[in-house]
Formats: sequence, C-alpha cells, structure tokens
Amino acid sequence: MFARSLRQLRRPILQQRWAHIGHAHANLRAVTSSDVEHFTSILSPSSVLSTLSPVSTASAELDSFNSDWMGKYRGRGNTVLKPRSTAEVARIVKYCNEHRIGIVPQGGNTGLVGGSIPVGAEGQEVVLNLGAMKDVRSFDPNSGILVADAGCVLESLSTYLEPHGYIMPLDLGAKGSCQIGGNVSTNAGGLRLLRYGSLHGSVLGLEVVLPDGTVLDQLSTLRKDNTGYDLKQLFIGAEGTLGIVTGVSILTPPASASINNVLLALPHFDNVVPLYRQVRRRLGEILSAFEFFDRQCYDLVLRHGQQPALPSDEVSDAQAFVLLETSGGHKEHDEAKLGELLEELLGAEGDAQLVTTGVLAQSQEQFNALWRLREGITESIGREGKAYKYDISIPVPKFKEAVDTVRERLRERGVLGKSPGGVSLVLGYGHVGDGNLHLNVVADSYTDEINDALEPFIFEMVSGYRGSVSAEHGIGSAKVDALKYSKGDASRLWMKKIKDLFDPNGIMNPGKVLPP
Amino acid sequence: MFARSLRQLRRPILQQRWAHIGHAHANLRAVTSSDVEHFTSILSPSSVLSTLSPVSTASAELDSFNSDWMGKYRGRGNTVLKPRSTAEVARIVKYCNEHRIGIVPQGGNTGLVGGSIPVGAEGQEVVLNLGAMKDVRSFDPNSGILVADAGCVLESLSTYLEPHGYIMPLDLGAKGSCQIGGNVSTNAGGLRLLRYGSLHGSVLGLEVVLPDGTVLDQLSTLRKDNTGYDLKQLFIGAEGTLGIVTGVSILTPPASASINNVLLALPHFDNVVPLYRQVRRRLGEILSAFEFFDRQCYDLVLRHGQQPALPSDEVSDAQAFVLLETSGGHKEHDEAKLGELLEELLGAEGDAQLVTTGVLAQSQEQFNALWRLREGITESIGREGKAYKYDISIPVPKFKEAVDTVRERLRERGVLGKSPGGVSLVLGYGHVGDGNLHLNVVADSYTDEINDALEPFIFEMVSGYRGSVSAEHGIGSAKVDALKYSKGDASRLWMKKIKDLFDPNGIMNPGKVLPP
Repeated sequence: MFARSLRQLRRPILQQRWAHIGHAHANLRAVTSSDVEHFTSILSPSSVLSTLSPVSTASAELDSFNSDWMGKYRGRGNTVLKPRSTAEVARIVKYCNEHRIGIVPQGGNTGLVGGSIPVGAEGQEVVLNLGAMKDVRSFDPNSGILVADAGCVLESLSTYLEPHGYIMPLDLGAKGSCQIGGNVSTNAGGLRLLRYGSLHGSVLGLEVVLPDGTVLDQLSTLRKDNTGYDLKQLFIGAEGTLGIVTGVSILTPPASASINNVLLALPHFDNVVPLYRQVRRRLGEILSAFEFFDRQCYDLVLRHGQQPALPSDEVSDAQAFVLLETSGGHKEHDEAKLGELLEELLGAEGDAQLVTTGVLAQSQEQFNALWRLREGITESIGREGKAYKYDISIPVPKFKEAVDTVRERLRERGVLGKSPGGVSLVLGYGHVGDGNLHLNVVADSYTDEINDALEPFIFEMVSGYRGSVSAEHGIGSAKVDALKYSKGDASRLWMKKIKDLFDPNGIMNPGKVLPP
Repeated sequence: MFARSLRQLRRPILQQRWAHIGHAHANLRAVTSSDVEHFTSILSPSSVLSTLSPVSTASAELDSFNSDWMGKYRGRGNTVLKPRSTAEVARIVKYCNEHRIGIVPQGGNTGLVGGSIPVGAEGQEVVLNLGAMKDVRSFDPNSGILVADAGCVLESLSTYLEPHGYIMPLDLGAKGSCQIGGNVSTNAGGLRLLRYGSLHGSVLGLEVVLPDGTVLDQLSTLRKDNTGYDLKQLFIGAEGTLGIVTGVSILTPPASASINNVLLALPHFDNVVPLYRQVRRRLGEILSAFEFFDRQCYDLVLRHGQQPALPSDEVSDAQAFVLLETSGGHKEHDEAKLGELLEELLGAEGDAQLVTTGVLAQSQEQFNALWRLREGITESIGREGKAYKYDISIPVPKFKEAVDTVRERLRERGVLGKSPGGVSLVLGYGHVGDGNLHLNVVADSYTDEINDALEPFIFEMVSGYRGSVSAEHGIGSAKVDALKYSKGDASRLWMKKIKDLFDPNGIMNPGKVLPP
C-alpha cells in the first residue's frame, strides 16, 4: 500500500516532465455537460461515456481509455465517444473543431509512447475510440485488396483472410488488441516488415476525417494510381494529429504454403551481421523474419515461464540469439534450403563457426514455442518491473555497443542494481533486417533519477549514430522533446506548417508528435 | 515537306488544347539577359544554355530540352541550367522564387505526359536539368541502401550495384535515359513493381530543394524511422511541383541467383486472370513479372524487327500473350517450380486449358529476346505512327473490354482506318499484377478529331470502372484536366492547399499536375 501511494503521489510530477501530461492546452476548452448532451444527439446512448451529466458514467469506467497498458501514462479525459460510422466521426470532429475541444483518436490503445491518451488539463480532450467501427468493407480474392474499418482488430483481419489464402502484411505482438487504423496512424512496423515492407508501400488508400469534419475519401483499391499528390501518405504515421483514419485499403500478400522457423544461439554478438549475410544468401526470397535478442532477454523469458528451446548446457556461453523464419510456396524446396543452411552453419569450424547450436521447429507447437521466446519478451519485461522503452534505428553492428553503453551509463550514475528504485536489467532485442533495436531498461519503478540518466543521453547516442530515436513506436507524447535528435530544423518547421494547414485550431491529438 | 509544314502549323492549336501549352503563366515573368547573367555567376559557364545574351546559345541546342521524345510537346524555354550540386540548385531556386521565374525540373525527359518541358509563354520557365548531378553518394553492402544524386541514370545505378550483388527495385523501358530523381518525382512503376513494390515503400529518404531555396535534408539511410510526418512521401509523384529532388536514398534488393522467363500464348483474353492465379499459386515468391500484351502488340513488334519466339502456326489463333519472369535464389528449385507449372499448363485439356503454347528461355540471349517482345512495344508504336497513350488502372478482367470499347468508339466516329489522318491501331498491354493497362491508339498524326473522340471518353470509362486515369505515367501537363476523373473535390482541394503551402509563388513546374 505504501509503495502504491508513493507512486500515486509522484505521478503528476513525472508525467509532466516526461510527456507534457497535465499541462493545459491554451487553445482548447474543457468538455461541458452541454457538449455531452450534444454528443448524445449524434451518437447512440451507449456510445457516449462521460463523467458529466446527462450521462454521468462512473469515473472508473473511463480508466482503461485514460491510461496505457504499461501504467506509465494517465490522462484526465472525462468523455469517451465510440462512433459507429464515418459520418458520426465527421459530425463529432466538426463540433469539436467549432467548439475548440481536443480529440484523442484511440485504437487498441496498445502504443508505447503515450500517443493515444489525453495529456491536457481535465476534460480538454474527448477520447474518440474507433473500436465500434469494425467491419470489413470489401475483399477481392483476385488482387488481395482488403478494405476495412479503422477499428478492425489486426488479428481478426488475419482470421478473416485465412480462408481466402491471404495474410496481413504486418504482424505485431499486440495483434490481439491493436486496430488497423491505429497501425496505419502509427506506421506500425513489426515482424513482417523485412518481407512485406512498410505500410507506406502496402496501404493503397485511406478514408480520413479531417479536423474540419471533411471526409477525405482516398479509399482507392488500385495498386497503382499516379494522379496527383499521395496525400494519404501524410496520415500514415501522423499519430492522429492531422486527422482521424476511419477506413483503410491495404494490399495483402498471399499466405505461404510452407512456414518454418529456427532458433540459433551465437557465441558472440559480432556474429550476427555475418550470420545475417549468410542467411540472406542461402534463403533469399523465402526469409520472412530475422530477429535478434540478447542473453538477458533469453534468460528473462525463461524466468517468466517460456520453455527453453535449447539445452541449457549447450547455450551456457551464448551471448546472442537469432530467430529466423521462412515463408515459401514449396515445402520441399523450403526445407531443402533450410537444411543446406543449417548444415553449412553447424558444419563450420574455427572462425567460420558463427553459431553454437540451433533448433528447427518440427511441429506447429514447436514453431509457436520458438516465436513465444521472441514475442514473450515484452510481456516478461512488464512482469519484471517498469520498463523504460527505447525503440531506435542504428547500424546493426552497433546494437550491442549501444546496450553496453547505456548499462555503463546507469552504473556510473549509481542506479544499476540499486534497491529499491534502481535498474535491474538493460537488454536489447529487435529486427536485424530493419536495423531496429529495442533497448529496454527495467526498474522497479519510474523515477526521475533513472529518467535523467537515460535522457537525453540515449537520444544523443542515437544522434551520434545518425539513427532514429523512434524506429517504429512513433513520437506520441513521450518523445516530443526527442524529435529534434532525428529531424533537422527544416524538417520540423515543415511538419509544423503541415500541422497548421490541416489543423489550424490544434484540436487533433494535441500535445503529440510536435512541440506546442 | 508538306506534311511537316502542316504539322508545324497545327501544333500550337493542338498543344494549347491538350496541355495548356503556350498559355502565359499570369504570375511569372520571362527570363531576361540580366537573369542569365546572374545564372552565369552561380553556375560554371558550360552549365548555362540560353538564347539570350551574354550566353547566346543557338536555339537549336535547346531543342532537346524543350521537346519530348515522342515529338508531342514543344516548349518555349529560352534558358537551360545544369547545376552540379545541391547548393547550386538551391541558389537558382531562391533567385527564381524572388524574381518570379518558373522552373521546370528535368531528368532524362523520358516522360509521357508532358511533365518535363516548359508549357508557359516564351522564356517564362528555365529548364533545370539534373543530368550533371550523377554521383553515387554512398552504398552499404550490408543493408543494400544506396544514396545517389538525382541525375544518376537508372541503368548506370544498376551497373553500379551489380558487383555488389544488388539490383534497383525498379526497371523501366527507359532505363538507359531516365534518372532516379525523375523516377522518384514521377513515382515510376515499371516491370518490377509486382515483386519489389512501389517507390513509396523503397525510397528511404530524399534531399529536396524547396521553392524558397531551403534544402530539406531527409536523406535518411534508415529502413525504419517513425519520427514525425513522412514529408518525403509528398515529393514522390509530385512531378517537381513542390520542390526539386536532388538526392535519393533507396533500399535495393539483393540480386537473384537465378532468373528465368517464359512467353505464353493464350487463345482468349479471358484466360489471363485464371492463368495469373495459377501462376501465383505455383511460383509464389519467385514470380517477378507477369506482363500481358494483346495480339495487335505481338504482330506489331514482329513487324518492327523482333524475332517471333513462337512458331507462327502455333499462335495463329492466340488472342493474348503473357510474359512471366521468375527471380529466385536457387536455380534447381526455381527451374523445378517452373517445370511443374509448365507441365500443368501444357498438360491441361478442355476448359482447363489456359494456354495454347509457350516457350521457356534457354539462354541469356533467348531471355533478352523474350523481354524485347514486351519492351519493344513502345518503340514499335513510335515507329508505326503517333501514339495517343493512356495508362490506366482498371480491374484486370476489364482490360480487353476497355480496348474493344475504345476501338468501337473510334470506328463509330469514323476515324478508325481512315487515311490520311486516321487511327491504324488500338492496342493494349500492361502489368497484370498491378491492374495497370497501357491503352495505345496509333495514328499517322496528332489531330483534334481523334483527340476529341478519345477524351474525355476514356477518362469517363475509367471513372466508370472506379479506376485511375494515370496508373504510373503521372499527370504532367497532358492530364491536368483529367485529374478530376480519379480524384474527388476534397482530394483536389487539399492538393491545391499543399501546393500553395510549399510554392506560394507558383514557380515550380507551373501548369503541371493541378489546374492553374
């Protein structure tokens, strides 16, 4: 109880520093009962939650919309709206724009940077949750083009496509909750980017409600369309600050007939890059994932209940692990390619020996178990303590150096291993094919001391590598101050001009992406 | 001689109607000697061509910069600038912006829609040719990320990459002349899009000189970077109307160890879609092109010197041809997959028989010969007469219907087969995997009569299919009036707002993409 009270006490201070949370937006006013009454005239009664009259929802019912799953951010919205159609969204937005009420578009609320919760003063933003818009609008089994409401859950779309022999071009750990509109708005990357590319390539069209309530219908189902500026691209990754994505047209790839995965243990991190080159050469077009995680990650997921896929004595000296996946159209060919690769890897000697040992999944169950070792990392970190999450793009050869540098920094600052209030783990994992490292610092609580040791230290380090301070998580409210480490003055100036052009009143997801 | 004079006489009228050519831009003034003198102070003497003093270039030397390779558009620029660096481009642009002089960015000048030649009154635009900026800035053989000057010729980049084991993610018939900056600015599609996706996915970063002379440096070499709005996307396909692309960072795919192609003859067009489905199922991830051309195209390229790849008696009844290509990492596997496919196709009987006959290239020479049948179409059309080119996205099952409808239209209007001044051929070819049909009408000259029969007829037809009036060629000056058939009011309004934001003085490629 004591610890909890302490954290509650500290929270407002921390949140202010980290995420501009709780700062009033000067341009916006708080929602009133009269606004809520108007919302109930636009939406069906069950679609409006508000602590204000005439709805008077119990405040606890708004909790899940006001806070993120990590328990790091807590907003002060008093009203949540759940429209069921694009027309309803447009009417809400138009009203809010005219009345200077902020809007936080919210999908599955699975983000990691505080992008989908209100950050203003109490009631300054309504949460506009897209979860009730969850219909597939169309699917063409010839072309693989899917058109869906923004609120469709990623996994449910995968399930929808399965009987047609197609898959979604992206896959995330959060697939069971995250929504396609949120995926697009945050330009989600994930596990399949190596193979199927980014959403900037696979999204063919969007329907967006602009801040003035206009519906921008660019819901094209064409693979190619060079008629003027590709405006939809602006909304991919804009995190709802330029408009609300309500519909998505996306090119889905055919499902592969044959899928395999392999876990490899490496004696040194330095072997990762040569291994990646060898794997690419051998597997070519059937390689669909090449994920790296370090020793700390491996031990952590085992500690939290995952089964070790490799005998512990064989991996006692392993410093790094690689999970690779193949997806191809021809079972025998794929297995032959994998067989040749593994033979080459395990038969190598001396300096050419890149891996210590490895395992090829022999059943769907084993396949899933190997993926759980990788996908279970996030959850295990959450169980272990509070995570300071950094999602950075840097050259792959620097992955380990970056993790070691941060660990050393925390040691110098005296917070590594300190108890209570100290850091227990510094670990790294990520997508080698994309140069994307997830650097996580785990502690028993969020403290200013740790935060000050990490920021702007990590951002400066990333900037030194000419990397990105946010490879796939976005900016949200958490990284607003860090934007300058990856984007120059001209880029930030033009982002602001674009923001002001679309949203002159600053109602769309205020306090996110760009400094006020 | 008479014919030529007649054409010259007609030209100004036609050009005005088709492409806003020769209309004065109200906001711009013509280049003067004093401007030319200033340009010579920015650039080296050999980089300034102008009919004005103090340079006084012979007007004929400007011809190739003022006209397109089809001989369809002819601009009236009096000055051509060939900067050698981004800094030089920036100084020119800043000066032109301050002095209200239009700028036409020009790459290889291989476009098909009059996008890279001046269209204003005499001297209102300088041609800014990027051809002198042709250095590769960097290449990382681990990641495959290439950074190059905008003026690098596409084929020279392919040659550069070859020893590193990489290829460019796009391939066009114009590869020997077109430049990467132009490819990006026009969002070029081409022959590899089916496999490697669009430039919106593969371009990682751009360096752009904005209309005020600012250099927007977004030349990222990161595969993933979610820090704010992806501004570079706006310039991909903007055809130089928002700024000048001076540098490109692009993700290049590994070259495939094994490449094969096959030409198939089909008795009916209706077999194309089922064939595509069967081919995708059999070849999966190694399929790298699936190109269709109709009987008229096949006969045409043979008439213009290509060798028939199939015995003429075997294809006498063929209505359609398909050229498919595979690119894979494993020669034996790829050949086995192709072998299984061909066995299935040629062994089929009755309704299941989709192809009449086919040929698999057995040597590099044969491989090239098969591709020449497809890539030779454009050149053969050029030799046959004057082409009215339409590049549309429509559902694949409608490809033949569209060509037949247009042929019937021309027959009804009495211009099909008419001589002189009539249409000799209406033909269709294109990229099945992308739903992209090239519909070409060939006549002995460009006439208003034919043009009136075709437009807006074709645009209305495309609109009826909910297609795109420009799949990959862009809008240029030729399709400005057609934009509305593929983009709604809100989309066009917001394009205009974006244009005005970046280029308030309207100096960048005036008269292109958007109506004045």
